[in-house]
Amino acid sequence: MVYTVDALNSFFSTPAIRSLWTDAAVIDAMIRFESALAASQAECGVIPASAADAIARTCSTFTIDPHQLAAEARNAGTLAIPLMKALKAAVQKVDPAAVACVHFGSTSQDISDTALLCQARASMDVLERDLRRLGDALASQVDRYRTTPVLGRTLLQPAAPVSFGWKVAGWLDAVTRCSAALKAAGDEACTLQFGGANGTLAMHGDAAGAVTQALAKRLGLRTPAMSWHGARDRIARLGSELAILCGALGKIGRDVSLLMQFEVAEAFEPTGEGRGGSSAMPHKRNPVSSMYLLDAANRAPMVAAILTGELASEHERGLGSWPNALPVLADLFDLAGSSLSAAVDIGEGLRIDAEAMQANIDRLYGVVYSEGISLTLSGKLGPAAAARIVGQVCEQAIQQRTPVADLLKAMPDVTAVLDDATLDRLASPAAQIAACQPMCDAVLRQWRLAHP
Amino acid sequence: MVYTVDALNSFFSTPAIRSLWTDAAVIDAMIRFESALAASQAECGVIPASAADAIARTCSTFTIDPHQLAAEARNAGTLAIPLMKALKAAVQKVDPAAVACVHFGSTSQDISDTALLCQARASMDVLERDLRRLGDALASQVDRYRTTPVLGRTLLQPAAPVSFGWKVAGWLDAVTRCSAALKAAGDEACTLQFGGANGTLAMHGDAAGAVTQALAKRLGLRTPAMSWHGARDRIARLGSELAILCGALGKIGRDVSLLMQFEVAEAFEPTGEGRGGSSAMPHKRNPVSSMYLLDAANRAPMVAAILTGELASEHERGLGSWPNALPVLADLFDLAGSSLSAAVDIGEGLRIDAEAMQANIDRLYGVVYSEGISLTLSGKLGPAAAARIVGQVCEQAIQQRTPVADLLKAMPDVTAVLDDATLDRLASPAAQIAACQPMCDAVLRQWRLAHP
Amino acid sequence: MVYTVDALNSFFSTPAIRSLWTDAAVIDAMIRFESALAASQAECGVIPASAADAIARTCSTFTIDPHQLAAEARNAGTLAIPLMKALKAAVQKVDPAAVACVHFGSTSQDISDTALLCQARASMDVLERDLRRLGDALASQVDRYRTTPVLGRTLLQPAAPVSFGWKVAGWLDAVTRCSAALKAAGDEACTLQFGGANGTLAMHGDAAGAVTQALAKRLGLRTPAMSWHGARDRIARLGSELAILCGALGKIGRDVSLLMQFEVAEAFEPTGEGRGGSSAMPHKRNPVSSMYLLDAANRAPMVAAILTGELASEHERGLGSWPNALPVLADLFDLAGSSLSAAVDIGEGLRIDAEAMQANIDRLYGVVYSEGISLTLSGKLGPAAAARIVGQVCEQAIQQRTPVADLLKAMPDVTAVLDDATLDRLASPAAQIAACQPMCDAVLRQWRLAHP
Amino acid sequence: MVYTVDALNSFFSTPAIRSLWTDAAVIDAMIRFESALAASQAECGVIPASAADAIARTCSTFTIDPHQLAAEARNAGTLAIPLMKALKAAVQKVDPAAVACVHFGSTSQDISDTALLCQARASMDVLERDLRRLGDALASQVDRYRTTPVLGRTLLQPAAPVSFGWKVAGWLDAVTRCSAALKAAGDEACTLQFGGANGTLAMHGDAAGAVTQALAKRLGLRTPAMSWHGARDRIARLGSELAILCGALGKIGRDVSLLMQFEVAEAFEPTGEGRGGSSAMPHKRNPVSSMYLLDAANRAPMVAAILTGELASEHERGLGSWPNALPVLADLFDLAGSSLSAAVDIGEGLRIDAEAMQANIDRLYGVVYSEGISLTLSGKLGPAAAARIVGQVCEQAIQQRTPVADLLKAMPDVTAVLDDATLDRLASPAAQIAACQPMCDAVLRQWRLAHP
Repeated sequence: MVYTVDALNSFFSTPAIRSLWTDAAVIDAMIRFESALAASQAECGVIPASAADAIARTCSTFTIDPHQLAAEARNAGTLAIPLMKALKAAVQKVDPAAVACVHFGSTSQDISDTALLCQARASMDVLERDLRRLGDALASQVDRYRTTPVLGRTLLQPAAPVSFGWKVAGWLDAVTRCSAALKAAGDEACTLQFGGANGTLAMHGDAAGAVTQALAKRLGLRTPAMSWHGARDRIARLGSELAILCGALGKIGRDVSLLMQFEVAEAFEPTGEGRGGSSAMPHKRNPVSSMYLLDAANRAPMVAAILTGELASEHERGLGSWPNALPVLADLFDLAGSSLSAAVDIGEGLRIDAEAMQANIDRLYGVVYSEGISLTLSGKLGPAAAARIVGQVCEQAIQQRTPVADLLKAMPDVTAVLDDATLDRLASPAAQIAACQPMCDAVLRQWRLAHP
Repeated sequence: MVYTVDALNSFFSTPAIRSLWTDAAVIDAMIRFESALAASQAECGVIPASAADAIARTCSTFTIDPHQLAAEARNAGTLAIPLMKALKAAVQKVDPAAVACVHFGSTSQDISDTALLCQARASMDVLERDLRRLGDALASQVDRYRTTPVLGRTLLQPAAPVSFGWKVAGWLDAVTRCSAALKAAGDEACTLQFGGANGTLAMHGDAAGAVTQALAKRLGLRTPAMSWHGARDRIARLGSELAILCGALGKIGRDVSLLMQFEVAEAFEPTGEGRGGSSAMPHKRNPVSSMYLLDAANRAPMVAAILTGELASEHERGLGSWPNALPVLADLFDLAGSSLSAAVDIGEGLRIDAEAMQANIDRLYGVVYSEGISLTLSGKLGPAAAARIVGQVCEQAIQQRTPVADLLKAMPDVTAVLDDATLDRLASPAAQIAACQPMCDAVLRQWRLAHP
Repeated sequence: MVYTVDALNSFFSTPAIRSLWTDAAVIDAMIRFESALAASQAECGVIPASAADAIARTCSTFTIDPHQLAAEARNAGTLAIPLMKALKAAVQKVDPAAVACVHFGSTSQDISDTALLCQARASMDVLERDLRRLGDALASQVDRYRTTPVLGRTLLQPAAPVSFGWKVAGWLDAVTRCSAALKAAGDEACTLQFGGANGTLAMHGDAAGAVTQALAKRLGLRTPAMSWHGARDRIARLGSELAILCGALGKIGRDVSLLMQFEVAEAFEPTGEGRGGSSAMPHKRNPVSSMYLLDAANRAPMVAAILTGELASEHERGLGSWPNALPVLADLFDLAGSSLSAAVDIGEGLRIDAEAMQANIDRLYGVVYSEGISLTLSGKLGPAAAARIVGQVCEQAIQQRTPVADLLKAMPDVTAVLDDATLDRLASPAAQIAACQPMCDAVLRQWRLAHP
Repeated sequence: MVYTVDALNSFFSTPAIRSLWTDAAVIDAMIRFESALAASQAECGVIPASAADAIARTCSTFTIDPHQLAAEARNAGTLAIPLMKALKAAVQKVDPAAVACVHFGSTSQDISDTALLCQARASMDVLERDLRRLGDALASQVDRYRTTPVLGRTLLQPAAPVSFGWKVAGWLDAVTRCSAALKAAGDEACTLQFGGANGTLAMHGDAAGAVTQALAKRLGLRTPAMSWHGARDRIARLGSELAILCGALGKIGRDVSLLMQFEVAEAFEPTGEGRGGSSAMPHKRNPVSSMYLLDAANRAPMVAAILTGELASEHERGLGSWPNALPVLADLFDLAGSSLSAAVDIGEGLRIDAEAMQANIDRLYGVVYSEGISLTLSGKLGPAAAARIVGQVCEQAIQQRTPVADLLKAMPDVTAVLDDATLDRLASPAAQIAACQPMCDAVLRQWRLAHP
């Protein structure tokens, strides 16, 4: 019996991430902590090697029913107590003398936090692979479409064209930053928690530092300057970066879903059997990848704020201000994993309709070039005359469905100062497309430098 | 294989609530929608009675593997499409003619939202029972301790005493309001979603209203004025009330955990075998119920804000702004259920040490009565003299460990205007305890009126 | 010198609301509290009438430099202490005997909270007027456009048409609920705070209840069952409702801004001199009212969560968990006021292009009617054949730019079971528009019942 | 007339920060952008030097009434439009030919975002100075109290002692990390926004890159790879770090306010005339610095989440998803500034009562040493016997008010394996205090390395 909405949460995660945040994964990470702790303590002479062996052997086959564990944990207030009780009972059968060495000098939050960060470490590895794949896919699209004109759109209104590759470069620029910032926050967060009952590791005497280093090394975590049961900014920072990533990827979903509107029809999510259908309308294709991106972008920021909101905790270990870290980080990794998966789908499979892009530009009859025309005319005729002329032709262009360039060519005060070729150039995306190129180059360079 | 931290989330829920938010519960609620829909449509002549029968029979034995459903749903963007496909296949075996009547005129979000609210309805019933139990327990404590003095504490500094019953009345006052507001929000939120593909129920012709009413009645939900796929304030309101309840109950946890500090030691959570132990320190008893209350109070407000943050959705059905409702409401009901359970533990089992309360009062040597003394002296000697005298005796009282009353009785300018009996009365909690009584009465009356 | 971004915050408020949340308004509300307190205490025999007179006279002309007050307040931790010091100094000049009666038996948080709620009360009155105006405007639009077809749009993809009036009815339905819920929360929140130093009103003896009632009446606030310095769910509930209102109005901004896209061009915000221009592009008209609505919808939910997040406060008066209520409620009223103002602009001035709406429908060649066609064919030919036929004609309709109805009329297996008139009806919005009418009626009835 | 709660917001900011976020500061930053833009464009040959001179001269004396600006801005949807209109009018008087060069090739959001980040840059400088001062103060306290025993406290219950310097090292450890992370995020965020109407800088032709670099240099900002109107993760990251800082400093406030409880009385905020008084209780001293720290820790996380929640914005410039950045960053810098100021007050002025710390330890009669005793006995007598003995003496110690060591010395099975000297050592804080030293060293080393 599953006691949670589990399989049906598939909208908000991926199999690769979910497998790292199950009951079994939590218990496994906790048991690995105990095994590595004993090994490190033996290595440093804190406990006998025979005890560490017995503990390692027991841990390697140890199992426990999560439901029984959970029931006892609710009573105890921590998973560690019933888990240690069960582990000690198992060690008792292997080597009674080793029982006193189980969890020696450690505390509940050492095991909870460290297990959490081992799960985070594994999750970071998954996300980093997907981020690499996403960035590479976006970089390809930048290259491919760097001269394909598409309307710029600001405040949901048309502006002068940009290139579609440049638009994707905007996504990639953010992904490059988010990737670096998430890696930094993740590496920093994946730090061993080890302090014992009051955080000082007093039971370890002079061996405290050595055990700490050995344990961190075994678990693939960083070594802290001191235990940090009450100083959890690293976890808040990791949570914030996961949320920022979801937000930045959500922007891809926003743009694609808007481009995919029937009335715009310039870009499309990849299709496939059963993908994005409607239960009521056979003709529909819904932007499901965009939906997952927006789901996560809507949810993650508040979820991450929980962790930041719990920093002002009490004394050496707060009350009620750290147990949330497990479900909250699980949620955030789920959402980030889901977002990356959806973004990769889009990044690798996005279909573009360059003709539709051009047609939407054409339907504006050149009014989106008014800035350049206005600035050029202003230099020749002064701002007042330029404003009057441009205002007039923009209005006429839409009303009469006539290109702005044609209207200008028919105005003597304009043709007196600008020839037809200049007007044609001003009323074309040439300047914009050219302007996009160095920016695309700079963004691609950034990504490739960071991901050679 | 469970793909989520499931059993180990026991810190943040209760078995009663969790059983209502499982894969099986979601699927069950969705299938009940389809069965009730067919029955209501048959009742109103929209589909043949034979089809409704076939659908009802199929639904009554229908099962589906949630993992397979989930995998297809990630692709489809909704649970409804693969679920309807499977249900239709099952109906096909029973009565091929009924297949066209399955999910007739309905849409994915009708079934998703309505199933969600059926789960919410059942969860509300659980919470309402627990709220009743909590309020009754707190009312008993108010009565029991209404004249037991305890230090008032403001900004974490001592103030004049209050009665412990009055302190509990403050908790009950909030619980009374939260209970009423949650019930109102829950009843309002538990409204049928039914609109078909575009929300208008056009496939139902003139029968739309009748089917809506019949369906709502069958499912125990309210009938809406119109479908509300894009107008989800009711769900946001329910979420906000669940979070406010968690916050108000969190206050109980905050107070109890502070009273339970070793240095204060005035009140204690109930104890029990294995309850609140420490994995490292055999002597410790941790305030685990308070911890659960604070966990939820720290998490629920941000979780609820997700729902409010998704109100500005697009057109007739937003993109990415409603699928979060399922996991978010599940979280909020979990947290509210956990909070209520912990609050009931405290409300029914709280142990009080009235002697310790009095001893903590006594250790202040009466300086906490300075306001009353000051005001009384002020009336006799003017504010300046009163301020001087009270400032002096308060300082001396703490330094010399001598009661303020004794010091005042030795000051001629004081004894000239106030006799010893008056001084003793002013330096006792009598006035405060008396003042607590009408407030306790008013709060008890409010609770009992609402819960006769 | 202004020490805050003040005038330039005009994007996020209105003059009517801002004037209620200035330094002067805060001080004025605090001084009114003191004046009303003295009058109520005199009325109940707690202080002499002459003292109340002196205090009232002093208050009526009292002024203080807010910057000096602020500097002292930062040191004191509360506005009340330096303010009471200044007020007492002023009373001293009028009637030295009355000084001891200033702020008698009250405490800093009494005056802070009560002043806050007097400001909230006045703000609620402004919002209620605007909500009435908004609802009436939307009701007119529902009536006016109740049969004007417009594409339904779900997940940002086209669905069968709805009427534009029905779409507005969806907005009005939410406004009706939000209006009622906000009024309830506001009325409940606007409750007197009065408890004195420890909350018990002990200095008032038997007169406590009478003074409380008299004071609440004078200030236009509700009378509480007990003081509530540490039980602030009412304020959290008010904050949540303000945020929910911002969210529900944000939906109007979302829809209008999407309809106002150049490629859709179905509805437009009202225009005016200088309204929504671009600093760079002379031709542009930006959806500024929608922008204000979305600004507020993006910000308010998190701001409101602050209040809910502060409920678990310590003992009789929390530390750091209530001073935020002033800036946070000020923000929320600002945002709600700005939203309502922008929504009224849209509600009263929205321009519709019904021809564009029809043209966008026509560009889909009837594929949005596929659900009705499919269900009807399914009844005649079975689901499999219906699905095949509809799938085929939908694809052809778009590719060949030919209406679905024309394609169907050319298919013998279709014409064998459906005549041309039926096909024309199925491929028209008639059924949808008809279906919209009872829903529009129900929503209008609801609004008008609540706002006769 | 001030239209905002201004001076009275002094609880939530400092004069140094507030002066950077006024109407005047915003306008000044915007005007500096225009002046620097013209100078950079002249430098790169985009506009004549004479025009840049005229613009620079005009900017140097330009003033505008913020209220008039604000009223027009609400209509325009941006401050830039009315501001540019006024600036152009002023330039017109100086050099009409220069008018066309004002704001050339730029857009509203270029000026808004860049002005915002110039304000952020100046605010960062203030915060960095305060962070340096705070860290140095905390480092001194670590050194001073590194061997002063104080109860460890976990879950608000007593644990074995730590040293007070070690406790402060926990604060410093977080401050060191937050300082580095905030600096990184701030430096990264303070990046020029410059893209013109559609983001491509097309009006600048080949000079775009050169103007961008020159402009960034003049304003002390970083040069972006491309304009980032719709890719605002840097701002979200800065906001998150400001919130994390507030949270980490809030922990200092939490700890100090708990230590300052009358019943604990181990540490005290600095006192001073009028500091932390009570309007009702003359004897009280409230922890006002802690209050400011908690105020900010309660508010900042949600405020920062607003910025992360706005990342999924539309196309080249979102609607309603960036104007909030001004008030939100202003709030966050205010809160961070207030927090740092309060933390410095505590860091530099905290008073410690080492005797009270020892007395609180002594009142536990050594039960807090049970872990060490238990582990040592366990090695001698086995875990079962150790658990039995320790459980018994802990219970007796509290009941009989007798030190655990004395009880153990009277037990023959204990004295058989441990001598008195060992028992005395086990029941003293020696091991804990020793264990604190290397951690203190490591934290001090970290701080000093980063702040030489």
